[in-house]
Amino acid sequence: MVKKVLKFGGTSVGTTQRIHHVANIIKKEREIGNKIIAVVSAMAGKTNELLSYSKNIDENFEKRELDVLLSSGEQVTCSLLAGALMKLNIEAKSWLNWQIPILTEGEHTNSRIINININKIDEYLNKGVAVVPGFQGISKDGDITTIGRGGSDATAVAIAKIFKADTCEIYTDVDGVYSSDPNKIPVAKKIDKISYDEMLELSSVGAKVMQSSAVQTAMMYDIPLEVRSTFTDRKGTKIFSQENIDYSKSVTGVAYSKDDAKITLIGVEDKPGVAANIFEPLNKNQINVDMVIQNISSDQNTTDITFTIKRDDLVKTKEILKANNKIKYKNISHNDKVAKISIVGAGMVSTPGVTYRMFRGLADSNINILAISTSEIKLSVIIDEEKTLDAVKKLHTIFDLD
Amino acid sequence: MVKKVLKFGGTSVGTTQRIHHVANIIKKEREIGNKIIAVVSAMAGKTNELLSYSKNIDENFEKRELDVLLSSGEQVTCSLLAGALMKLNIEAKSWLNWQIPILTEGEHTNSRIINININKIDEYLNKGVAVVPGFQGISKDGDITTIGRGGSDATAVAIAKIFKADTCEIYTDVDGVYSSDPNKIPVAKKIDKISYDEMLELSSVGAKVMQSSAVQTAMMYDIPLEVRSTFTDRKGTKIFSQENIDYSKSVTGVAYSKDDAKITLIGVEDKPGVAANIFEPLNKNQINVDMVIQNISSDQNTTDITFTIKRDDLVKTKEILKANNKIKYKNISHNDKVAKISIVGAGMVSTPGVTYRMFRGLADSNINILAISTSEIKLSVIIDEEKTLDAVKKLHTIFDLD
Repeated sequence: MVKKVLKFGGTSVGTTQRIHHVANIIKKEREIGNKIIAVVSAMAGKTNELLSYSKNIDENFEKRELDVLLSSGEQVTCSLLAGALMKLNIEAKSWLNWQIPILTEGEHTNSRIINININKIDEYLNKGVAVVPGFQGISKDGDITTIGRGGSDATAVAIAKIFKADTCEIYTDVDGVYSSDPNKIPVAKKIDKISYDEMLELSSVGAKVMQSSAVQTAMMYDIPLEVRSTFTDRKGTKIFSQENIDYSKSVTGVAYSKDDAKITLIGVEDKPGVAANIFEPLNKNQINVDMVIQNISSDQNTTDITFTIKRDDLVKTKEILKANNKIKYKNISHNDKVAKISIVGAGMVSTPGVTYRMFRGLADSNINILAISTSEIKLSVIIDEEKTLDAVKKLHTIFDLD
Repeated sequence: MVKKVLKFGGTSVGTTQRIHHVANIIKKEREIGNKIIAVVSAMAGKTNELLSYSKNIDENFEKRELDVLLSSGEQVTCSLLAGALMKLNIEAKSWLNWQIPILTEGEHTNSRIINININKIDEYLNKGVAVVPGFQGISKDGDITTIGRGGSDATAVAIAKIFKADTCEIYTDVDGVYSSDPNKIPVAKKIDKISYDEMLELSSVGAKVMQSSAVQTAMMYDIPLEVRSTFTDRKGTKIFSQENIDYSKSVTGVAYSKDDAKITLIGVEDKPGVAANIFEPLNKNQINVDMVIQNISSDQNTTDITFTIKRDDLVKTKEILKANNKIKYKNISHNDKVAKISIVGAGMVSTPGVTYRMFRGLADSNINILAISTSEIKLSVIIDEEKTLDAVKKLHTIFDLD
């Protein structure tokens, strides 16, 4: 007998028929004697429907009330799943955020779970399935709070941690983590095992299978995760700490994202503090700068500085740069038709030549590299957007992932 | 400055545009300094949508979870209305059933409000509008409960009572109580003032403007009600205790319903206890018998017994009668093409001849009376269904209501 947290995302509970199906998955777990806490999202589309109501009322809908509004979505799923389980003669009960309670701190719409009272539910697990809403909690003042979109993953991991669950299974509409986007790269393969770090790097570059902060929490407390499909019986991807994984391959996956833009300041006056003067006002305006490259310019007293940001921030970034009278430069150029391609693998660090093989492969395909950044388990390059799929396919082949 | 409870029904808050409109109604009340508690229903259609989900899961959806499900509807409206008020710079806050709390007792889906904690809200009313969900509460065990469909009226009246509000205004999609159905009887007039008793009799025969038990509670605690339209500025109908109303007319309104059926048992053995033997098993099966008439039959040792029930109960009633071996009768006949026509008026009791004028008028129109029942302020007859509008129009004219 093991204690499991099973989390079902919005598409998994998107219709009453699917909720029946989820109840059958849980029934099988109960029949082999497992203790189950089910964490559920709002039915697919419901959160957006509620959000559109709020925007019709006020574009800047007040945040305390937004939390009251959005939290109703998971409440609906909780009761429907509890009802579906009872229909199958499985004892079950919904436990809402304030009934448990799930205590949070921080701002409305962006709170963090800090404690969950386990006594009542832990006792209940001996006889039935506890169904718990993801994404929400209450503040110490007794107001409803939410923990950001995708927050149901974070709820599931927090519950797994606090209830000392043996495992936390994330049921979703894909059957695991892939070596690249299976919709675009037909030879992409499902990864059986992956480390927390690799998972984080992959999701930071567009493989959005799980919410990153939830993976971070799981890593911090060493909670075994499994991402698997609600709609097939196939095994999913298990997510462990690195030491438990035997790496036969240097690279685990190739990811890409198309939401970056590149800005170059040409002929920047080359003196101490200039980089700080450029990036400080961007940081103050919550613009996230990703890669930064500094070259020597043709003119010896100046330098060229290139950096990448989210494409959505491009207009605002240029405005801030133009208003910045602490820096001097000759010209500014930008390119928002770029993509970021990343190879990720915990085995990279122990395998020589990975960097060289990547650059060589891209060169062979006539793909120009516009910027490079590296971490211990990730190597990213910026290239022309139109070459995205060529690059991903080439790298997927080079690193034996096909 | 007065303290008011304003209740807005499902159609009044059916769209975000209408919620904006409701916020403007409340704004006017705040601008003249009134303290406001707004009680809201779920947006029109939402409760049915949630019910259909539950039925897709299980025709007999478990009742505790049904309350969790349905209560989410009013939660949504609460937050949207609070947000809409803040958009108009009116300070406002939603207070959910468990945050107040609204304490109930009784079964799930059919609880009664027994207490409401007033301290926090009463203090808050000095600075803002408290928005409260109708229809729901929590049990002493901390489970969500609901108080039956239409229960938002009951919540509004309970809050008016416990908060000692000066008045309770029921905003709805009609602009008051009419002397008859204005959709069918074009000459029907809005009634300016009506007594609780008359209101109860009218709503029991089909004029469903307000939930009956809410009117009963208001009568018991003498809480002044006003039914008015959300969509016009016109005055509505004020509902008081009888002694505050000066009756110029003997009859206040003419109502009708078409959901009755008539059953006659012919040649029933005439001996003590026979009526009890007929009606006891019906009562046990929760079949509500309305009118009962007993005639002497042509055969001197037997009698004919006629009674009316809800049309929906007809099949079940006949089954119960046939299975009843404690009674003997020659034959059974039924008629489900009947209507019940009622004249209602607190002034009837002091006006001679009302009964006679009603019967004479129906006879003049060639309408046959199949059964009669009377109370102090109501006189009802059963007639052929196809004569319904003829009868209502005739009575409306006879009693000077046109």
